[in-house]
Amino acid sequence: MQSSVVTVPVRTFEGSGELDHQDYLTVEEPLQIRVGDRDVSVTMRTPGHDFDLAAGFLFSEGLLESPEQIASIQHSGPESQQRQRGNSVTVTLRPGVSLDLERLQRNFYATSSCGVCGKASIESLEVQGCSRFVTGEARIAPDIIHGLPGALRNAQPLFDRTGSLHAAALFDFSGQLLALREDVGRHNALDKLIGAEFLAGRTPLTERVLQVSGRVSFELVQKAVVGGIPVLVAVGAPSSLAVEVALRFNMTVIGFARGGRFNVYAGAARIGAS
Amino acid sequence: MQSSVVTVPVRTFEGSGELDHQDYLTVEEPLQIRVGDRDVSVTMRTPGHDFDLAAGFLFSEGLLESPEQIASIQHSGPESQQRQRGNSVTVTLRPGVSLDLERLQRNFYATSSCGVCGKASIESLEVQGCSRFVTGEARIAPDIIHGLPGALRNAQPLFDRTGSLHAAALFDFSGQLLALREDVGRHNALDKLIGAEFLAGRTPLTERVLQVSGRVSFELVQKAVVGGIPVLVAVGAPSSLAVEVALRFNMTVIGFARGGRFNVYAGAARIGAS
Repeated sequence: MQSSVVTVPVRTFEGSGELDHQDYLTVEEPLQIRVGDRDVSVTMRTPGHDFDLAAGFLFSEGLLESPEQIASIQHSGPESQQRQRGNSVTVTLRPGVSLDLERLQRNFYATSSCGVCGKASIESLEVQGCSRFVTGEARIAPDIIHGLPGALRNAQPLFDRTGSLHAAALFDFSGQLLALREDVGRHNALDKLIGAEFLAGRTPLTERVLQVSGRVSFELVQKAVVGGIPVLVAVGAPSSLAVEVALRFNMTVIGFARGGRFNVYAGAARIGAS
Repeated sequence: MQSSVVTVPVRTFEGSGELDHQDYLTVEEPLQIRVGDRDVSVTMRTPGHDFDLAAGFLFSEGLLESPEQIASIQHSGPESQQRQRGNSVTVTLRPGVSLDLERLQRNFYATSSCGVCGKASIESLEVQGCSRFVTGEARIAPDIIHGLPGALRNAQPLFDRTGSLHAAALFDFSGQLLALREDVGRHNALDKLIGAEFLAGRTPLTERVLQVSGRVSFELVQKAVVGGIPVLVAVGAPSSLAVEVALRFNMTVIGFARGGRFNVYAGAARIGAS
């Protein structure tokens, strides 16, 4: 397995002084995701939990619906080239299962027929298996939410060494940490997290809170909606489209959760005494 | 023109109190980039400087080589739908100019023949017009670098309102700010910055410093290499592949530039009394 962190030589300048030493960096490498003999995507990711990442990507893009559709997931680069082999994953489907891979291509290269304004993006989400919306009206107490950012940070083993890893963690409504994934890309951290739950047969993720270390983009909300996660809490700010999608799909989005404060941008009805 | 910032209703929880008020969010909307009648890419971006973004994307991906190849850049969605129209840009080429758009597709869907390990990614960069490497051995003084993060922050007009915009700025070696672009996506901020310089005929950007507000990924270094920028300074950390590519292409990469300190990960020979 490839490492998630490497040490490199670095020269630190402070005031008029210089110091040569070793520093930790987060590993970034491409991962090629294949389904059968088709290349589906290349993402720049931190090695580790690659099978969760591949499964989570295919699920959150609306291509896979159940883990039973998968026969196997394996590394698939040439045996002779270890680095390249570690950077390629092939998902083999069970006999009789086929995926609409053209849909993914249509998402990447949107045509004017599907439209590319925000509204049309939201509509394409609905088509993409998200007509279900996020269900569940269970409430989560503000005190639980106040505690999540600290719990995430304490559970993020690599962050303090490199200062550059995004984290995505799953909690239950009592604030219990259930799972955590880290990656140089925030969408990859979430794909790894959702992929592991998907492979274990635990989606949709009802009465779960997704806590992320950074900001909230459209893409993160899209993936959380597909996963059926009712509450997303971020240390950073959401974008306009992230909030718009959350409102449309009945999801709760909380931003700037730190220092005993948080802002609710969508779905405030889920916050309160449970 | 669409706005870069919107106000939305928000409920803030602090301790046991709640307050309903209005807050600023960064606008995130898709931008469809077309070349002639071909859809080339969709990127989630903050509206503004869309033509720079389209030109910068096509240049930094190695598709365009000179601004003379472009006849015009226009918004191109349906007249009747303002939001959708603002989210689509068409680049029209001069007669006789054609781009190898398949190359872009090959980058997105890497085949095993081009390889997808880090090494192969670097090799594909060389093919992509980067055999030139970054040139120039001019030196920049440490004191100038110490001043860049503050200069970027002071010049970033939107950041303090939303807390969620990435910035990319271009300085000369004396620390003079030349240009600044902001976006919800760090790669878009850089494409906007490089695109404006490209359209003005100022690439390659020799004796220029690129200062970015966040972390440094492979993709940012790739774009800076294509732009010919010799020095990249980041407030955050670089990834392993970002440093590897910088070393290969003779670029200087500096991270954690803040509070009177910075770390040099590649190209330290350019730092010193000029």
